Amino acid sequence: MSLRFNDFTPDTNEKTLSMKPEKISEFTTRRLSIYLRSLNQLTLEGVETISSQSFAERFNLNSAQIRKDLAYFGEFGVRGVGYDTEALRKHLIEILGLNRRHRVGIIGAGNLGLALANYKNWTASSFNVVALFDNDTARIGKTSLASSHASKNSDGVKIYDVRDFPTLARELELEMVALAVPRETAQSALDMVVEAGIKAVLNFAPAQLEAPEDVQVKTVDLTISLESLSYFLAQPTSDEVK
Amino acid sequence: MSLRFNDFTPDTNEKTLSMKPEKISEFTTRRLSIYLRSLNQLTLEGVETISSQSFAERFNLNSAQIRKDLAYFGEFGVRGVGYDTEALRKHLIEILGLNRRHRVGIIGAGNLGLALANYKNWTASSFNVVALFDNDTARIGKTSLASSHASKNSDGVKIYDVRDFPTLARELELEMVALAVPRETAQSALDMVVEAGIKAVLNFAPAQLEAPEDVQVKTVDLTISLESLSYFLAQPTSDEVK
Repeated sequence: MSLRFNDFTPDTNEKTLSMKPEKISEFTTRRLSIYLRSLNQLTLEGVETISSQSFAERFNLNSAQIRKDLAYFGEFGVRGVGYDTEALRKHLIEILGLNRRHRVGIIGAGNLGLALANYKNWTASSFNVVALFDNDTARIGKTSLASSHASKNSDGVKIYDVRDFPTLARELELEMVALAVPRETAQSALDMVVEAGIKAVLNFAPAQLEAPEDVQVKTVDLTISLESLSYFLAQPTSDEVK
Repeated sequence: MSLRFNDFTPDTNEKTLSMKPEKISEFTTRRLSIYLRSLNQLTLEGVETISSQSFAERFNLNSAQIRKDLAYFGEFGVRGVGYDTEALRKHLIEILGLNRRHRVGIIGAGNLGLALANYKNWTASSFNVVALFDNDTARIGKTSLASSHASKNSDGVKIYDVRDFPTLARELELEMVALAVPRETAQSALDMVVEAGIKAVLNFAPAQLEAPEDVQVKTVDLTISLESLSYFLAQPTSDEVK
């Protein structure tokens, strides 16, 4: 079974939900992303309207949660008819700030940084990786495709000297930064990014990082996904060991 | 602010929770992983007991949810005293099946596959990447560290011909596979993995994959994390634009 659309859950503890619009929970924004993917799929299939119930069943979501999440942002549904998929899709794109492209910089041009820069899903999305940064002179000046087997119909992303980050962050108008550096240097890299005025950071280093309140740092921890798989394998009553 | 420990949420829809032990929800296992990380930290600090309230406050978790999750697996807490951190930590390691190492294979030895193979957090964890597979003859026979700047005190992971996967999966006793292949080849790679009897798959390709019910496929979608950051940046009332 695939858990792609199952990986998010209704929450009972969104204390901030009813207070300030800008403070809706992280979990809600993640669900909105899931709804958007599902709506993209429905649009491709030519589905013009859908009830929250059918929507939930189709994509393995929770219909009450869908209604709650969407009602928070306005009136999208028509009683007895359902949601207008295209109108809802456009609205979610706006809510998530995906109606314009975001300029992303990546610190660290090792395998992970290069993989991120060449990640094809980004080019079709609202995120544009415009620069890589590294402190290794063997890498600086090359591009993300130089030693890669990625498609040749792209120039790749240029690798800059990380010492030039403060200047280039401004010149290249970076809005987001991904940290693809070792654990040991993650905090100092983050400090540099914060100092440059960047407010949104995606961290891949397995480290707990400190940032000011007005900077959003999201850490992607791969071992958590692995541990869920491990739990699944550990169950003596699972099908595979019957 | 860091969302590391905030990225999980109590759920109201765990219909399967009270039915069969092996069917506790994905969300619960993810929270157990988070609790384990927090307990590891407390153990390092020499904290011997902690109340669910202090535990929740310290790691930005929900105390009612902690009590509910842990009660499901047995009696860990002592009223008025709290949890024995070391006992609870050991128990979670057992529940999650982390008391033995899992042998992991990675399909795709591009930048992402190499980054995964060299990901340092895994070596300290219960996951052991024992083989990479690729169809590119320029890569086959090399190791994950060959063209990498990773530490030299390791031999790296060997890259095998993907055509040998069915045989090697058995010989190397692989239990889990990570798919680090392009979207176009993800489903056929998964089919091969399923055919070889692997029941747990971590998929990094931006694709919805089909697998039998008894195979657990988790897709890691990086754009979802980015969209949360985008939402944060899109809010006109956020601090940064005041």
